[in-house]
Amino acid sequence: MTYRPAHRLADIEPFHVVELLTRARQLEAEGRDIIHMEVGEPDFPTPEPIAEAAIAAIRDHKTLYTQALGLPELRAAISAFYGQRYGVTVPASRIAITNGASGALNLAFAALANPGDEWLLADPGYPCNRHILRTYEGLPRSIPVGPDSNFQPTPEQVSAEWNERTAGLLVASPANPTGTLLTLDEIAALANECRAKDGHFLVDEIYHGLTYAPSPKGTCSAAQEVPLGDEVDAPTACAAGDDIWVINSFSKYFQMTGWRLGWMVIPEPYVRDVEKLAQNLTLCPSTPAQYAALAAFAPATIEILEARRGEFRRRRDFLAPALEAIGFRVTARPEGAFYLYCDCSALAADSFVLARDLLEKTGVAATPGLDFGSNEPEKHIRFAYTTEIPRLAEAVSRLSAYFGR
Amino acid sequence: MTYRPAHRLADIEPFHVVELLTRARQLEAEGRDIIHMEVGEPDFPTPEPIAEAAIAAIRDHKTLYTQALGLPELRAAISAFYGQRYGVTVPASRIAITNGASGALNLAFAALANPGDEWLLADPGYPCNRHILRTYEGLPRSIPVGPDSNFQPTPEQVSAEWNERTAGLLVASPANPTGTLLTLDEIAALANECRAKDGHFLVDEIYHGLTYAPSPKGTCSAAQEVPLGDEVDAPTACAAGDDIWVINSFSKYFQMTGWRLGWMVIPEPYVRDVEKLAQNLTLCPSTPAQYAALAAFAPATIEILEARRGEFRRRRDFLAPALEAIGFRVTARPEGAFYLYCDCSALAADSFVLARDLLEKTGVAATPGLDFGSNEPEKHIRFAYTTEIPRLAEAVSRLSAYFGR
Repeated sequence: MTYRPAHRLADIEPFHVVELLTRARQLEAEGRDIIHMEVGEPDFPTPEPIAEAAIAAIRDHKTLYTQALGLPELRAAISAFYGQRYGVTVPASRIAITNGASGALNLAFAALANPGDEWLLADPGYPCNRHILRTYEGLPRSIPVGPDSNFQPTPEQVSAEWNERTAGLLVASPANPTGTLLTLDEIAALANECRAKDGHFLVDEIYHGLTYAPSPKGTCSAAQEVPLGDEVDAPTACAAGDDIWVINSFSKYFQMTGWRLGWMVIPEPYVRDVEKLAQNLTLCPSTPAQYAALAAFAPATIEILEARRGEFRRRRDFLAPALEAIGFRVTARPEGAFYLYCDCSALAADSFVLARDLLEKTGVAATPGLDFGSNEPEKHIRFAYTTEIPRLAEAVSRLSAYFGR
Repeated sequence: MTYRPAHRLADIEPFHVVELLTRARQLEAEGRDIIHMEVGEPDFPTPEPIAEAAIAAIRDHKTLYTQALGLPELRAAISAFYGQRYGVTVPASRIAITNGASGALNLAFAALANPGDEWLLADPGYPCNRHILRTYEGLPRSIPVGPDSNFQPTPEQVSAEWNERTAGLLVASPANPTGTLLTLDEIAALANECRAKDGHFLVDEIYHGLTYAPSPKGTCSAAQEVPLGDEVDAPTACAAGDDIWVINSFSKYFQMTGWRLGWMVIPEPYVRDVEKLAQNLTLCPSTPAQYAALAAFAPATIEILEARRGEFRRRRDFLAPALEAIGFRVTARPEGAFYLYCDCSALAADSFVLARDLLEKTGVAATPGLDFGSNEPEKHIRFAYTTEIPRLAEAVSRLSAYFGR
């Protein structure tokens, strides 16, 4: 039969960093020491209380299908978490448990996107978001964002880009690749803009919990002024209206990446639609993962997670000024996630070429801007601080030598 | 914002049986004894070697993301399984690990279905298949199937239904709800028909392994003539050409339902397309589930599974003649899965009304034909033998009393 993939495949890109990863593995096989700063995954193991909860469930034969929207007790636990941590009331009936945040976005766009609809997304941004949208025949329309707006879209940009085909807006706070946050006022203003246009508003909060002391714009070195342990939680969009779709995950703060579990807060009128889709598209999320996640909100787990959050903060506070001293410019305020999105235009003409050369010559792996959109990707490179400080220091030392600093 | 779901939602139905399930739970809460014959899930726990492999992996912190197409060692294990069990060579490079068979079908239709394309599917059939297709903007076109062709589509039907908008054909062997099989000759003939039309051909084999001694058409009571333990494996479509998409699952034979793990054999030219989609839509399948599944092919596991397969066989051999004695007609040859799809038109005018009445008056829960399509659903009802023989006997006794037999 003739090779004839669906037309959408032409618009869906692979992860460019995989090419680098493959080369990194080759080099490692040859005995080279590679420092992995390209990985979007916490280096900590899943906290023991979560792992033990999974093991107990498996031993107890709790491995059958659950309801399509997830275990009622887990939906209730997430609802309680919104109350405790954010002081926001989110009824369990509006919470769907999903196959990671990816699964949540699949269900959201399956529920909302019509063929040919346009959706506004920030560029740079997490590339899968626009590809998931495209898979459901929606068309991503980029809002270029930069240092002027801390790499977040503004209501004015949203208003200017909106046209008769526009169906909605997706933002992320903290954002990937920049780690920048939206304040509650900024979220509310974007929500109001969407309401004025009668459009949908989705907020990706998958790095929630991994937010740190504010670091003044442009000078990350000043971040240390806020004492460790006084980390500030980002506001949740759930506080800005019950007509907002909010996507979250157990992957990042809760460090359950490979378990593939996330959740979504759904505007009430769409709960039944998402349930129908979940019944048909996925049956249910992973049952062992759901039982594991029931332990995610226990005080003993939160204590472990907060200690690790402090460690991410220390890494950021070490790495950001060290990269700036080399000549990378951290033009976004990196207050969340575990990334520094650096302007490297003073150091190299093309970040993709630079990333390859750094890997070959220094053994430092980082992600070129190309994976995050088409808004000056060649000028940017993303460093993840998902490795411990001595290794980050070794990377800085190698990069300094490479650039002759 | 105005409630405005995607247009596709109008074509995607919920599981009608959920209404019955909800009522069954109410009755149970009131103290009624309900016999669950509506459930499409094995009643056996996940075999201990599989569960213990998961626990070892979790303890060993093997819970990070894997490659998008899955663990190379699991892909290799499945490749080896095709060789051992079927004598068919399927390279590991063509095998993708997925979020259950549901995840496989999502990826297949995302890779192949263009908006407005028509796909041929058997009716009655597993309802999610047509709803997944519709989600990716493909249009399901039903081939009505019945006793004449053992509830499987024939090449003549495929040829007659094919038009200029038709993109492909999806069949299932064993089929749900009927449990009927396709021979290798029949699969090859359907594949040839698709090749003649230059269309795609997908075969759902998620009930593979759960196949039993042949039972002569129309008279299930004769099935006992084949000795227990001489169960016959269904042929895999992998033996009929490497241009066929084959979908399988760890849920049914391997009894890992809630783990959400399946796989797909992909025609070589599409492997890269499916990988791109998997990277963007799912990141990877559940890591603990993948490590668990590495133990699925061990001889100790297979021994457990084959014993349970024998038990399913015994249940079918008990239940089919017992239902026929009451007046249900098992017009499909139920040689696989764990369902009996019965013509109940001699007993009731509408199977949906009947299912509700049976639940209320006898406490027996079964799935009305309505959940499987629009081909005479009111005449049919599906009984699952996913409960032990004494309970099946109790159900038969209650049904006999209800119908006055």
